[in-house]
Amino acid sequence: MNHQSEINKSPLLSRRSALKGLGALGAAGTLSAHGFSAPETIRKIKLEQGSVIVFQGDSITDAGRNRDLAEANHEKSYGRGYVGMLAGSLFGKYPELNLKVYNRGISGNKIPDLAARWQQDTIDLKPNVVSILIGVNDHWHQLGQNPSYSATLEDYENGYRELIQRTLRELPGVQIVIGEAFTTRKGEFDPVDDYAAVCKKLADEFNLVFVPYDQTIERLVPAHHKDFWLWDGIHPTVPGHALLADTWRKATGL
Amino acid sequence: MNHQSEINKSPLLSRRSALKGLGALGAAGTLSAHGFSAPETIRKIKLEQGSVIVFQGDSITDAGRNRDLAEANHEKSYGRGYVGMLAGSLFGKYPELNLKVYNRGISGNKIPDLAARWQQDTIDLKPNVVSILIGVNDHWHQLGQNPSYSATLEDYENGYRELIQRTLRELPGVQIVIGEAFTTRKGEFDPVDDYAAVCKKLADEFNLVFVPYDQTIERLVPAHHKDFWLWDGIHPTVPGHALLADTWRKATGL
Repeated sequence: MNHQSEINKSPLLSRRSALKGLGALGAAGTLSAHGFSAPETIRKIKLEQGSVIVFQGDSITDAGRNRDLAEANHEKSYGRGYVGMLAGSLFGKYPELNLKVYNRGISGNKIPDLAARWQQDTIDLKPNVVSILIGVNDHWHQLGQNPSYSATLEDYENGYRELIQRTLRELPGVQIVIGEAFTTRKGEFDPVDDYAAVCKKLADEFNLVFVPYDQTIERLVPAHHKDFWLWDGIHPTVPGHALLADTWRKATGL
Repeated sequence: MNHQSEINKSPLLSRRSALKGLGALGAAGTLSAHGFSAPETIRKIKLEQGSVIVFQGDSITDAGRNRDLAEANHEKSYGRGYVGMLAGSLFGKYPELNLKVYNRGISGNKIPDLAARWQQDTIDLKPNVVSILIGVNDHWHQLGQNPSYSATLEDYENGYRELIQRTLRELPGVQIVIGEAFTTRKGEFDPVDDYAAVCKKLADEFNLVFVPYDQTIERLVPAHHKDFWLWDGIHPTVPGHALLADTWRKATGL
Protein backbone atom coordinates (compact mmCIF):
# COMPACT_ATOMS: atom_id res chain seq x y z
CA MET A 1 0.00 0.00 0.00
CA ASN A 2 2.00 2.94 -1.26
CA HIS A 3 2.10 5.69 -3.83
CA GLN A 4 4.32 3.86 -6.27
CA SER A 5 1.68 3.44 -8.95
CA GLU A 6 0.57 7.05 -8.66
CA ILE A 7 4.14 8.27 -8.70
CA ASN A 8 4.94 6.38 -11.86
CA LYS A 9 2.26 8.31 -13.73
CA SER A 10 4.21 11.53 -13.46
CA PRO A 11 6.39 12.38 -16.45
CA LEU A 12 8.17 14.97 -14.30
CA LEU A 13 9.12 12.31 -11.83
CA SER A 14 10.51 10.25 -14.65
CA ARG A 15 12.60 13.22 -15.61
CA ARG A 16 13.88 13.45 -12.05
CA SER A 17 14.56 9.73 -11.91
CA ALA A 18 16.58 10.09 -15.10
CA LEU A 19 18.60 12.86 -13.48
CA LYS A 20 19.25 10.60 -10.52
CA GLY A 21 20.51 7.94 -12.86
CA LEU A 22 23.08 10.40 -14.14
CA GLY A 23 24.33 11.02 -10.63
CA ALA A 24 23.15 14.65 -10.67
CA LEU A 25 21.99 14.43 -7.07
CA GLY A 26 25.17 12.94 -5.61
CA ALA A 27 26.64 9.47 -5.37
CA ALA A 28 23.88 6.89 -5.43
CA GLY A 29 25.78 4.69 -2.99
CA THR A 30 25.73 7.40 -0.38
CA LEU A 31 22.02 7.93 -0.81
CA SER A 32 21.31 4.23 -0.50
CA ALA A 33 23.34 3.72 2.67
CA HIS A 34 21.89 6.79 4.36
CA GLY A 35 18.44 7.69 3.11
CA PHE A 36 18.64 11.32 4.09
CA SER A 37 22.26 12.07 3.22
CA ALA A 38 22.78 15.39 1.50
CA PRO A 39 24.83 15.73 -1.66
CA GLU A 40 28.49 15.75 -0.76
CA THR A 41 29.31 19.06 -2.41
CA ILE A 42 26.81 21.06 -0.35
CA ARG A 43 27.83 24.25 1.41
CA LYS A 44 27.58 24.19 5.18
CA ILE A 45 26.07 26.79 7.49
CA LYS A 46 28.42 28.47 9.98
CA LEU A 47 27.14 29.45 13.41
CA GLU A 48 28.79 31.93 15.74
CA GLN A 49 28.19 33.21 19.25
CA GLY A 50 24.68 34.68 19.40
CA SER A 51 23.71 33.67 15.87
CA VAL A 52 20.06 34.34 15.00
CA ILE A 53 18.19 31.74 12.97
CA VAL A 54 14.78 32.48 11.40
CA PHE A 55 12.57 29.78 9.92
CA GLN A 56 10.12 31.07 7.31
CA GLY A 57 7.36 29.33 5.42
CA ASP A 58 3.79 28.06 5.41
CA SER A 59 1.80 25.61 7.56
CA ILE A 60 4.54 22.99 7.47
CA THR A 61 6.86 25.45 9.20
CA ASP A 62 4.11 27.03 11.35
CA ALA A 63 2.98 23.62 12.66
CA GLY A 64 0.50 25.11 15.13
CA ARG A 65 2.92 27.47 16.87
CA ASN A 66 1.58 30.11 19.27
CA ARG A 67 1.91 33.22 17.09
CA ASP A 68 1.38 35.56 20.06
CA LEU A 69 4.83 34.62 21.32
CA ALA A 70 7.15 36.89 19.35
CA GLU A 71 10.26 36.36 21.45
CA ALA A 72 13.04 33.97 20.46
CA ASN A 73 13.55 30.66 22.22
CA HIS A 74 10.15 30.31 23.86
CA GLU A 75 9.21 26.62 23.95
CA LYS A 76 5.62 27.32 22.85
CA SER A 77 6.64 29.48 19.92
CA TYR A 78 7.85 26.60 17.76
CA GLY A 79 4.81 24.43 17.08
CA ARG A 80 4.91 20.67 16.83
CA GLY A 81 6.97 20.39 13.66
CA TYR A 82 10.48 20.32 12.27
CA VAL A 83 11.32 23.81 13.57
CA GLY A 84 10.73 22.81 17.19
CA MET A 85 12.75 19.66 16.62
CA LEU A 86 15.61 21.64 15.11
CA ALA A 87 15.47 24.20 17.92
CA GLY A 88 15.86 21.38 20.45
CA SER A 89 18.70 19.84 18.48
CA LEU A 90 20.54 23.12 17.95
CA PHE A 91 20.28 24.22 21.58
CA GLY A 92 21.31 20.74 22.68
CA LYS A 93 24.26 20.53 20.33
CA TYR A 94 25.57 24.11 20.68
CA PRO A 95 24.67 25.21 24.22
CA GLU A 96 27.68 27.54 24.36
CA LEU A 97 26.59 29.62 21.34
CA ASN A 98 23.49 31.21 22.91
CA LEU A 99 21.60 30.93 19.66
CA LYS A 100 18.33 32.76 19.04
CA VAL A 101 15.84 30.70 17.06
CA TYR A 102 12.57 32.11 15.67
CA ASN A 103 9.73 30.35 13.88
CA ARG A 104 7.91 32.77 11.59
CA GLY A 105 6.04 30.30 9.40
CA ILE A 106 2.35 31.09 8.82
CA SER A 107 -0.24 28.62 7.54
CA GLY A 108 -1.44 29.14 3.98
CA ASN A 109 1.42 31.44 3.01
CA LYS A 110 2.67 31.75 -0.55
CA ILE A 111 5.49 33.86 -1.97
CA PRO A 112 3.46 37.13 -2.03
CA ASP A 113 2.50 36.60 1.65
CA LEU A 114 6.14 36.21 2.63
CA ALA A 115 7.07 39.30 0.61
CA ALA A 116 4.38 41.37 2.37
CA ARG A 117 5.69 40.58 5.85
CA TRP A 118 9.38 40.06 5.06
CA GLN A 119 10.55 43.32 6.64
CA GLN A 120 9.05 42.82 10.12
CA ASP A 121 9.12 39.01 10.19
CA THR A 122 12.60 38.45 8.76
CA ILE A 123 14.79 41.50 8.08
CA ASP A 124 14.01 43.23 11.39
CA LEU A 125 15.08 40.14 13.35
CA LYS A 126 18.60 40.60 11.91
CA PRO A 127 19.14 36.90 11.25
CA ASN A 128 22.46 35.28 10.44
CA VAL A 129 20.58 32.32 8.97
CA VAL A 130 17.23 32.40 7.13
CA SER A 131 15.67 29.03 6.33
CA ILE A 132 12.80 29.16 3.82
CA LEU A 133 10.30 26.46 2.85
CA ILE A 134 7.61 27.77 0.51
CA GLY A 135 5.88 26.65 -2.66
CA VAL A 136 3.27 23.97 -2.18
CA ASN A 137 0.49 26.54 -1.62
CA ASP A 138 1.69 28.59 -4.59
CA HIS A 139 0.69 25.60 -6.65
CA TRP A 140 -2.21 23.77 -5.00
CA HIS A 141 -4.21 26.87 -4.07
CA GLN A 142 -4.69 27.23 -7.82
CA LEU A 143 -6.27 23.79 -8.18
CA GLY A 144 -9.83 22.58 -7.78
CA GLN A 145 -13.24 24.02 -8.66
CA ASN A 146 -12.85 27.40 -6.96
CA PRO A 147 -9.17 28.17 -6.68
CA SER A 148 -8.28 30.89 -4.17
CA TYR A 149 -5.15 31.99 -6.02
CA SER A 150 -3.87 32.59 -9.49
CA ALA A 151 -0.23 32.94 -10.53
CA THR A 152 2.18 31.30 -12.92
CA LEU A 153 5.23 29.20 -12.21
CA GLU A 154 7.22 32.20 -13.44
CA ASP A 155 5.51 34.40 -10.84
CA TYR A 156 6.66 31.94 -8.19
CA GLU A 157 10.23 31.89 -9.50
CA ASN A 158 10.49 35.64 -9.93
CA GLY A 159 8.87 36.42 -6.57
CA TYR A 160 11.13 33.93 -4.82
CA ARG A 161 14.20 35.38 -6.56
CA GLU A 162 13.24 38.91 -5.47
CA LEU A 163 12.88 37.69 -1.89
CA ILE A 164 16.35 36.15 -1.98
CA GLN A 165 17.92 39.24 -3.58
CA ARG A 166 16.26 41.51 -1.04
CA THR A 167 17.48 39.35 1.83
CA LEU A 168 21.06 39.28 0.57
CA ARG A 169 20.99 43.05 0.02
CA GLU A 170 19.46 43.97 3.39
CA LEU A 171 21.44 41.49 5.48
CA PRO A 172 25.09 41.39 4.37
CA GLY A 173 26.67 38.05 5.22
CA VAL A 174 23.33 36.31 5.77
CA GLN A 175 23.24 32.58 5.04
CA ILE A 176 20.06 31.43 3.29
CA VAL A 177 18.78 27.85 3.34
CA ILE A 178 16.31 26.89 0.60
CA GLY A 179 14.01 23.97 1.37
CA GLU A 180 12.68 21.95 -1.55
CA ALA A 181 8.88 22.14 -1.86
CA PHE A 182 7.34 18.67 -1.54
CA THR A 183 4.19 16.57 -1.75
CA THR A 184 3.31 12.93 -2.25
CA ARG A 185 0.20 13.87 -4.26
CA LYS A 186 2.27 13.97 -7.42
CA GLY A 187 -0.26 12.72 -9.97
CA GLU A 188 -3.02 14.93 -8.67
CA PHE A 189 -0.79 17.96 -8.31
CA ASP A 190 1.17 17.94 -11.57
CA PRO A 191 3.26 19.86 -12.36
CA VAL A 192 4.19 20.37 -8.70
CA ASP A 193 7.68 19.01 -9.39
CA ASP A 194 8.31 22.17 -11.38
CA TYR A 195 8.01 24.13 -8.13
CA ALA A 196 10.55 21.85 -6.47
CA ALA A 197 12.81 22.39 -9.47
CA VAL A 198 12.56 26.19 -9.02
CA CYS A 199 13.79 25.82 -5.43
CA LYS A 200 16.85 23.92 -6.63
CA LYS A 201 17.43 26.35 -9.51
CA LEU A 202 17.40 29.37 -7.20
CA ALA A 203 19.62 27.71 -4.60
CA ASP A 204 22.15 26.98 -7.34
CA GLU A 205 21.82 30.47 -8.85
CA PHE A 206 22.76 32.15 -5.56
CA ASN A 207 24.98 29.36 -4.22
CA LEU A 208 22.69 28.74 -1.24
CA VAL A 209 22.34 25.63 0.88
CA PHE A 210 19.61 23.43 -0.61
CA VAL A 211 17.63 20.94 1.49
CA PRO A 212 16.32 18.10 -0.71
CA TYR A 213 13.09 17.35 1.17
CA ASP A 214 11.11 16.16 -1.84
CA GLN A 215 13.85 13.89 -3.12
CA THR A 216 14.28 12.40 0.35
CA ILE A 217 10.57 11.76 0.91
CA GLU A 218 10.07 10.45 -2.62
CA ARG A 219 12.80 7.88 -2.11
CA LEU A 220 11.29 6.63 1.14
CA VAL A 221 7.58 6.57 0.34
CA PRO A 222 7.46 3.19 -1.44
CA ALA A 223 8.66 1.30 1.65
CA HIS A 224 5.88 2.56 3.91
CA HIS A 225 2.16 3.02 4.40
CA LYS A 226 1.27 5.75 1.92
CA ASP A 227 0.53 8.35 4.59
CA PHE A 228 3.56 7.53 6.73
CA TRP A 229 5.56 10.69 6.04
CA LEU A 230 2.84 13.16 4.95
CA TRP A 231 -0.56 12.29 6.43
CA ASP A 232 -2.54 14.11 3.72
CA GLY A 233 0.16 14.16 1.08
CA ILE A 234 1.15 17.71 2.15
CA HIS A 235 1.56 17.95 5.92
CA PRO A 236 4.17 15.83 7.71
CA THR A 237 3.40 13.34 10.48
CA VAL A 238 5.71 13.33 13.50
CA PRO A 239 8.08 10.90 11.72
CA GLY A 240 7.78 13.12 8.64
CA HIS A 241 8.77 16.25 10.56
CA ALA A 242 11.67 14.31 12.09
CA LEU A 243 12.76 13.36 8.57
CA LEU A 244 12.64 17.03 7.53
CA ALA A 245 14.74 17.94 10.57
CA ASP A 246 17.26 15.20 9.79
CA THR A 247 17.44 16.29 6.16
CA TRP A 248 17.96 19.93 7.19
CA ARG A 249 20.75 18.96 9.61
CA LYS A 250 22.50 16.90 6.93
CA ALA A 251 22.23 19.64 4.31
CA THR A 252 23.42 22.43 6.60
CA GLY A 253 25.98 20.34 8.44
CA LEU A 254 24.52 21.45 11.78
CA MET B 1 14.55 32.76 34.70
CA ASN B 2 15.64 29.17 35.18
CA HIS B 3 15.80 26.32 37.64
CA GLN B 4 19.35 26.96 38.72
CA SER B 5 18.48 28.12 42.23
CA GLU B 6 16.11 25.22 42.76
CA ILE B 7 18.59 22.74 41.40
CA ASN B 8 21.31 23.95 43.72
CA LYS B 9 19.19 23.02 46.73
CA SER B 10 19.51 19.34 45.94
CA PRO B 11 22.30 17.50 47.75
CA LEU B 12 21.90 14.65 45.29
CA LEU B 13 22.56 16.99 42.43
CA SER B 14 25.66 18.18 44.16
CA ARG B 15 26.75 14.58 44.39
CA ARG B 16 26.21 14.23 40.68
CA SER B 17 28.03 17.45 39.91
CA ALA B 18 30.94 16.14 41.95
CA LEU B 19 30.94 12.98 39.87
CA LYS B 20 31.03 15.10 36.73
CA GLY B 21 34.05 16.93 38.06
CA LEU B 22 35.82 13.60 38.31
CA GLY B 23 35.11 12.88 34.67
CA ALA B 24 32.87 9.93 35.50
CA LEU B 25 30.47 10.85 32.71
CA GLY B 26 33.03 11.16 29.93
CA ALA B 27 35.43 13.84 28.76
CA ALA B 28 34.15 17.23 29.81
CA GLY B 29 35.45 18.75 26.59
CA THR B 30 33.25 16.46 24.55
CA LEU B 31 30.21 17.28 26.64
CA SER B 32 30.85 21.00 26.29
CA ALA B 33 31.30 20.98 22.55
CA HIS B 34 28.28 18.78 21.98
CA GLY B 35 25.63 19.12 24.66
CA PHE B 36 24.04 15.77 24.03
CA SER B 37 27.15 13.71 23.32
CA ALA B 38 27.14 10.31 24.94
CA PRO B 39 30.07 9.01 26.94
CA GLU B 40 32.70 7.70 24.59
CA THR B 41 32.91 4.24 26.09
CA ILE B 42 29.24 3.44 25.46
CA ARG B 43 28.17 0.25 23.71
CA LYS B 44 26.40 0.72 20.41
CA ILE B 45 23.24 -0.95 19.17
CA LYS B 46 23.51 -3.15 16.08
CA LEU B 47 20.66 -3.32 13.60
CA GLU B 48 20.14 -6.01 11.00
CA GLN B 49 17.72 -6.70 8.19
CA GLY B 50 14.20 -6.77 9.64
CA SER B 51 15.24 -5.79 13.17
CA VAL B 52 12.32 -5.17 15.53
CA ILE B 53 12.57 -2.23 17.94
CA VAL B 54 10.12 -1.81 20.85
CA PHE B 55 9.88 1.38 22.90
CA GLN B 56 8.48 0.86 26.39
CA GLY B 57 7.61 3.31 29.11
CA ASP B 58 5.10 5.80 30.49
CA SER B 59 3.43 8.97 29.19
CA ILE B 60 6.71 10.39 27.89
CA THR B 61 7.03 7.39 25.57
CA ASP B 62 3.27 7.11 24.92
CA ALA B 63 3.00 10.80 23.91
CA GLY B 64 -0.63 10.53 22.85
CA ARG B 65 -0.22 7.59 20.47
CA ASN B 66 -3.29 5.83 19.07
CA ARG B 67 -3.24 2.65 21.16
CA ASP B 68 -5.75 0.91 18.89
CA LEU B 69 -3.09 0.64 16.23
CA ALA B 70 -1.17 -2.47 17.22
CA GLU B 71 0.74 -2.94 13.97
CA ALA B 72 4.34 -1.81 13.51
CA ASN B 73 5.22 1.23 11.41
CA HIS B 74 1.82 2.94 11.34
CA GLU B 75 2.35 6.70 11.33
CA LYS B 76 -0.43 7.26 13.89
CA SER B 77 0.86 4.64 16.30
CA TYR B 78 3.83 6.69 17.51
CA GLY B 79 2.37 9.76 19.22
CA ARG B 80 3.93 13.20 19.09
CA GLY B 81 7.09 12.44 21.07
CA TYR B 82 10.60 11.10 20.83
CA VAL B 83 9.49 7.67 19.61
CA GLY B 84 7.85 9.12 16.50
CA MET B 85 10.91 11.26 15.89
CA LEU B 86 13.20 8.25 16.23
CA ALA B 87 10.97 6.17 13.96
CA GLY B 88 11.27 8.85 11.28
CA SER B 89 15.03 9.08 11.74
CA LEU B 90 15.57 5.33 11.73
CA PHE B 91 13.42 4.70 8.64
CA GLY B 92 15.09 7.65 6.92
CA LYS B 93 18.61 6.56 7.77
CA TYR B 94 18.24 2.82 7.22
CA PRO B 95 15.60 2.41 4.49
CA GLU B 96 17.21 -0.83 3.30
CA LEU B 97 16.81 -2.62 6.65
CA ASN B 98 12.98 -2.83 6.66
CA LEU B 99 12.88 -2.17 10.39
CA LYS B 100 9.77 -2.73 12.48
CA VAL B 101 9.28 -0.07 15.14
CA TYR B 102 6.63 -0.30 17.87
CA ASN B 103 5.66 2.21 20.54
CA ARG B 104 4.23 0.43 23.57
CA GLY B 105 4.50 3.23 26.15
CA ILE B 106 1.37 3.79 28.30
CA SER B 107 0.65 6.92 30.32
CA GLY B 108 0.98 6.58 34.06
CA ASN B 109 2.91 3.33 33.95
CA LYS B 110 5.33 2.28 36.66
CA ILE B 111 7.51 -0.82 36.93
CA PRO B 112 4.66 -3.11 38.11
CA ASP B 113 2.51 -1.99 35.15
CA LEU B 114 5.26 -2.85 32.71
CA ALA B 115 5.76 -6.22 34.39
CA ALA B 116 2.04 -7.02 34.11
CA ARG B 117 1.94 -6.47 30.35
CA TRP B 118 5.52 -7.42 29.47
CA GLN B 119 4.65 -10.73 27.82
CA GLN B 120 2.14 -9.43 25.26
CA ASP B 121 3.56 -5.92 24.85
CA THR B 122 7.25 -6.78 24.64
CA ILE B 123 8.24 -10.47 24.58
CA ASP B 124 5.58 -11.50 22.07
CA LEU B 125 6.77 -8.87 19.59
CA LYS B 126 10.14 -10.71 19.45
CA PRO B 127 12.19 -7.50 19.53
CA ASN B 128 15.89 -7.29 18.72
CA VAL B 129 16.03 -3.98 20.59
CA VAL B 130 13.98 -2.98 23.67
CA SER B 131 14.26 0.65 24.77
CA ILE B 132 12.88 1.37 28.25
CA LEU B 133 12.18 4.70 29.95
CA ILE B 134 10.44 4.26 33.31
CA GLY B 135 10.76 5.67 36.80
CA VAL B 136 9.35 9.16 37.23
CA ASN B 137 5.87 7.82 38.11
CA ASP B 138 7.36 5.23 40.46
CA HIS B 139 8.49 8.20 42.49
CA TRP B 140 6.04 11.10 42.06
CA HIS B 141 2.87 9.01 42.31
CA GLN B 142 3.92 8.55 45.93
CA LEU B 143 4.01 12.28 46.62
CA GLY B 144 1.32 14.73 47.68
CA GLN B 145 -1.67 14.54 50.02
CA ASN B 146 -3.30 11.41 48.60
CA PRO B 147 -0.64 9.40 46.86
CA SER B 148 -1.94 6.76 44.43
CA TYR B 149 1.02 4.45 44.90
CA SER B 150 3.35 3.15 47.55
CA ALA B 151 6.68 1.42 47.00
CA THR B 152 10.28 1.85 48.02
CA LEU B 153 13.28 2.76 45.91
CA GLU B 154 14.37 -0.85 46.44
CA ASP B 155 11.06 -2.06 44.98
CA TYR B 156 11.80 0.02 41.90
CA GLU B 157 15.32 -1.33 41.59
CA ASN B 158 14.35 -4.96 42.19
CA GLY B 159 11.32 -4.78 39.91
CA TYR B 160 13.38 -3.18 37.15
CA ARG B 161 16.12 -5.79 37.56
CA GLU B 162 13.59 -8.61 37.27
CA LEU B 163 12.22 -7.05 34.08
CA ILE B 164 15.71 -6.89 32.57
CA GLN B 165 16.56 -10.45 33.62
CA ARG B 166 13.28 -11.76 32.23
CA THR B 167 13.89 -9.96 28.92
CA LEU B 168 17.42 -11.31 28.57
CA ARG B 169 16.22 -14.82 29.41
CA GLU B 170 13.20 -14.84 27.08
CA LEU B 171 14.86 -13.08 24.15
CA PRO B 172 18.39 -14.41 23.62
CA GLY B 173 20.58 -11.81 21.91
CA VAL B 174 18.21 -8.94 22.67
CA GLN B 175 19.79 -5.50 23.06
CA ILE B 176 18.30 -3.43 25.87
CA VAL B 177 18.51 0.36 26.06
CA ILE B 178 17.97 1.93 29.49
CA GLY B 179 16.78 5.53 29.53
CA GLU B 180 17.65 7.66 32.54
CA ALA B 181 14.56 8.84 34.45
CA PHE B 182 14.39 12.64 34.50
CA THR B 183 12.62 15.72 35.84
CA THR B 184 13.43 19.38 36.34
CA ARG B 185 11.35 19.47 39.56
CA LYS B 186 14.38 18.36 41.55
CA GLY B 187 13.81 20.21 44.80
CA GLU B 188 10.15 19.27 44.97
CA PHE B 189 10.76 15.68 43.95
CA ASP B 190 13.78 14.74 46.06
CA PRO B 191 15.14 12.13 46.06
CA VAL B 192 14.17 11.61 42.44
CA ASP B 193 17.85 11.55 41.45
CA ASP B 194 18.06 8.21 43.27
CA TYR B 195 15.72 6.79 40.63
CA ALA B 196 17.97 8.12 37.87
CA ALA B 197 20.92 6.54 39.67
CA VAL B 198 19.15 3.15 39.70
CA CYS B 199 18.78 3.36 35.90
CA LYS B 200 22.52 3.89 35.55
CA LYS B 201 23.33 1.19 38.10
CA LEU B 202 21.23 -1.43 36.30
CA ALA B 203 22.60 -0.48 32.88
CA ASP B 204 26.12 -0.94 34.23
CA GLU B 205 25.21 -4.18 36.02
CA PHE B 206 23.99 -5.81 32.80
CA ASN B 207 26.30 -3.91 30.41
CA LEU B 208 23.36 -2.27 28.63
CA VAL B 209 23.31 0.95 26.60
CA PHE B 210 22.47 3.85 28.91
CA VAL B 211 20.84 7.05 27.63
CA PRO B 212 21.73 9.99 29.93
CA TYR B 213 18.51 11.99 29.53
CA ASP B 214 18.57 13.58 32.98
CA GLN B 215 22.22 14.59 32.79
CA THR B 216 21.65 16.10 29.35
CA ILE B 217 18.57 18.10 30.34
CA GLU B 218 20.12 19.22 33.63
CA ARG B 219 23.12 20.64 31.80
CA LEU B 220 20.95 22.62 29.38
CA VAL B 221 18.20 23.94 31.67
CA PRO B 222 20.11 26.97 33.03
CA ALA B 223 20.48 28.54 29.58
CA HIS B 224 16.74 28.57 28.85
CA HIS B 225 13.28 29.53 29.99
CA LYS B 226 12.61 27.10 32.83
CA ASP B 227 9.92 25.19 30.94
CA PHE B 228 11.84 25.03 27.69
CA TRP B 229 12.64 21.32 27.72
CA LEU B 230 9.93 19.93 30.07
CA TRP B 231 6.80 22.10 30.05
CA ASP B 232 5.63 20.91 33.49
CA GLY B 233 8.96 19.65 34.77
CA ILE B 234 8.04 16.09 33.69
CA HIS B 235 6.72 16.03 30.13
CA PRO B 236 8.90 17.19 27.22
CA THR B 237 8.01 20.00 24.84
CA VAL B 238 8.67 19.42 21.14
CA PRO B 239 12.27 20.67 21.55
CA GLY B 240 12.50 18.46 24.65
CA HIS B 241 11.38 15.37 22.76
CA ALA B 242 13.86 16.23 20.00
CA LEU B 243 16.58 16.43 22.64
CA LEU B 244 15.59 12.97 23.94
CA ALA B 245 15.72 11.62 20.39
CA ASP B 246 19.16 13.18 19.81
CA THR B 247 20.42 11.80 23.11
CA TRP B 248 19.08 8.33 22.25
CA ARG B 249 20.74 8.40 18.82
CA LYS B 250 24.07 9.47 20.32
CA ALA B 251 23.95 6.82 23.03
CA THR B 252 22.97 3.98 20.70
CA GLY B 253 25.09 5.15 17.79
CA LEU B 254 22.07 4.90 15.47
